[in-house]
Amino acid sequence: MKPDRAHSRLPPIASLSALGRGLLLAAAVALLAGSASALFLHALDWATATRLASPWLLAGLPLAGFAVGWAYLKLGGRSDGGNNLLIDEIHQPRQTLPLRMAPLVLLATVVSHLFGASVGREGTAVQMGGALADQLARAFRLAREERPVLLMCGIAAGFGSVFGTPLAGALFALEVLAIGRLQHAALLPCLVAALLADRVALLWGASHSHYAVAPFGQLSLLQLGALLLAGALFGLTARLFAGASHALAAQFKRRIAWAPLRPLLGGCVIAALAWSLGAERYLGLGLPVIGQAFEQPLPAWDFVGKLAFTIASIGSGFKGGEVTPLFFIGATLGNALAPLLQLPLDLLAAVGLVAVFAGAANTPLACTLMAIELFGTALGMPAALGCAASYLCSGPQGIYHAQRPGAGKA
Amino acid sequence: MKPDRAHSRLPPIASLSALGRGLLLAAAVALLAGSASALFLHALDWATATRLASPWLLAGLPLAGFAVGWAYLKLGGRSDGGNNLLIDEIHQPRQTLPLRMAPLVLLATVVSHLFGASVGREGTAVQMGGALADQLARAFRLAREERPVLLMCGIAAGFGSVFGTPLAGALFALEVLAIGRLQHAALLPCLVAALLADRVALLWGASHSHYAVAPFGQLSLLQLGALLLAGALFGLTARLFAGASHALAAQFKRRIAWAPLRPLLGGCVIAALAWSLGAERYLGLGLPVIGQAFEQPLPAWDFVGKLAFTIASIGSGFKGGEVTPLFFIGATLGNALAPLLQLPLDLLAAVGLVAVFAGAANTPLACTLMAIELFGTALGMPAALGCAASYLCSGPQGIYHAQRPGAGKA
Repeated sequence: MKPDRAHSRLPPIASLSALGRGLLLAAAVALLAGSASALFLHALDWATATRLASPWLLAGLPLAGFAVGWAYLKLGGRSDGGNNLLIDEIHQPRQTLPLRMAPLVLLATVVSHLFGASVGREGTAVQMGGALADQLARAFRLAREERPVLLMCGIAAGFGSVFGTPLAGALFALEVLAIGRLQHAALLPCLVAALLADRVALLWGASHSHYAVAPFGQLSLLQLGALLLAGALFGLTARLFAGASHALAAQFKRRIAWAPLRPLLGGCVIAALAWSLGAERYLGLGLPVIGQAFEQPLPAWDFVGKLAFTIASIGSGFKGGEVTPLFFIGATLGNALAPLLQLPLDLLAAVGLVAVFAGAANTPLACTLMAIELFGTALGMPAALGCAASYLCSGPQGIYHAQRPGAGKA
Repeated sequence: MKPDRAHSRLPPIASLSALGRGLLLAAAVALLAGSASALFLHALDWATATRLASPWLLAGLPLAGFAVGWAYLKLGGRSDGGNNLLIDEIHQPRQTLPLRMAPLVLLATVVSHLFGASVGREGTAVQMGGALADQLARAFRLAREERPVLLMCGIAAGFGSVFGTPLAGALFALEVLAIGRLQHAALLPCLVAALLADRVALLWGASHSHYAVAPFGQLSLLQLGALLLAGALFGLTARLFAGASHALAAQFKRRIAWAPLRPLLGGCVIAALAWSLGAERYLGLGLPVIGQAFEQPLPAWDFVGKLAFTIASIGSGFKGGEVTPLFFIGATLGNALAPLLQLPLDLLAAVGLVAVFAGAANTPLACTLMAIELFGTALGMPAALGCAASYLCSGPQGIYHAQRPGAGKA
């Protein structure tokens, strides 16, 4: 593994005209990815509302899983590589991403959500952004070594527009490629792509959740220590999540040769558990519970429940990504830890929301900016401490195994 | 030049106990560097007030320059390397920094300001932080390869406490070492050092300037384009500044062999120019003019004047660093460009303040966080665009020639 060699393929933007061309391409990526994110968010709203109005849909989860698995097996080709394929193509550009990656992940995610799988949104948005960006690379006949920046713009645009956090989107595209190191080369195009994609999605009527953290004054030294401890626990949770979902996926692959049977079985387990335990709150995105985590004490086992349902959903092959469930897990774990650690409930929910994700994706800087964009400047330093501690404790591998080892953690 | 080899010397913090020890050391660095920054800020307040009350002090500038040059020649040893020595020791740890680096740069900077040189504060704060941190490395017998993280904590603590921007301080310590790349290894200790140093300085009664940017609504596409153009101009200004001060310093060194004569001559020129042109506003830190740049249209040549006086001061050998003059140059240039580019005055002053510095120091991410800490979340994206554009246009070398080439700019 030679991360440097791979990284050095990022193209030199020597001249202003190349820069201008790059920014125009970034804007085109933004138009496509932002529109795709808006369509996706609207479809998710519909799927979630429909599922909540018709709880019996959960009975269809095994069949939905089968359909998702079958579609990827028959039509997906390389698409099943998901975020990892995208990261690999940025490090070592080989072949244009298939265009069908975009509609496939969109439909598979909406179906996963409609029938109650516990999955997220970032994978879908990022893969749509990347696949659409790569079609531009083909259409405009970009040189092979120019593709990586465009793919990074796709990630930045997809991430920034699906969460309404463009700064975090741009940083995520730079930071997710390797563990412990980021390079600046694509910073400006990624910023432009994320900013414009967010605007485009808003113009299409997309909306984002808002969480409020009350002013909390200066944290004492004891509270800062508690915050670091909480950050370490967020990181261990991220480590557990990444390890368990990888392990479950590996077990499924070893024991069940025919891919569509895996999410079918996973769907049976998830539906049976949800009904027998009355655990419907752990299905889907879980945005209402995330909101509650900022407002009132929640059951301490909420994060465990969401962890289990998400590991089962992702590990068995449902689509959508991990991030919104990680928000849920982090916010509810923060909610549960807050009284023990003598920290304000909403503050620790906010830090947990970004910090579990920061540990799982190895992106502490992007997640710090996300906290600032979601909750305001005052959350910057607490989130940075929580994310950095989580990142240090989340183990050598995160949720994206294509991430290059980079410079190591510490 | 092997940046990777050098970077790999950052120590592995394998265990939690090593992490705990690292954080305690970071806290100790914070106590020392924060106290030094507070002392420095109080001394600067006194020096500036005294100079303004007694304008005839400017007549002493040549003699003050001679004293500064003589002190560094006779007592400084390696101290004259300043920020570059610090960066070099982080990449290739050789020898503990001399403790006298701290009092020497403190006194030399206060003397420079008292008699009217146009210099800054970050060099002093960062060098005091680094030199003090290194004494801890010696006292606690840290291994040679553990010193870099402690020195980075010194930079983070000094920078964070002298400007009241701890997040930017921590990022600055990571980002300033190489152009176009940063590593995460020291993130957590740098955050802790910067946060606590800022607190310590505030406890000693240090205060920071506050600038307000009025809410500006959504920027149009045209305004965003104008912002990028302004960012490019900020970067070209940074390039001019770095190139001219390096060139002037090189000329001085070539033509005047005995170091103390250089700032003596520089002081004569600066004092003569200031009096003959009535250009006292370009002496010292210039904080009042920076404040005005957010409130009212200023003469378009303000940035040129400050540029000339600062190049003459730094190039001839006065001490203190470049950052606050770069704030002045950026804010007044932004102020002058705002009506031409149809952007709000305070917005472009704020972006200019951070973006010229971002280009000159090659630290666009740290400067984006600084904008968020100084002006609020709304400034995040405009500052990021301005800083990224400035960084791309500021040329291959910034104000710190010890910066490693890293991954290149684009």
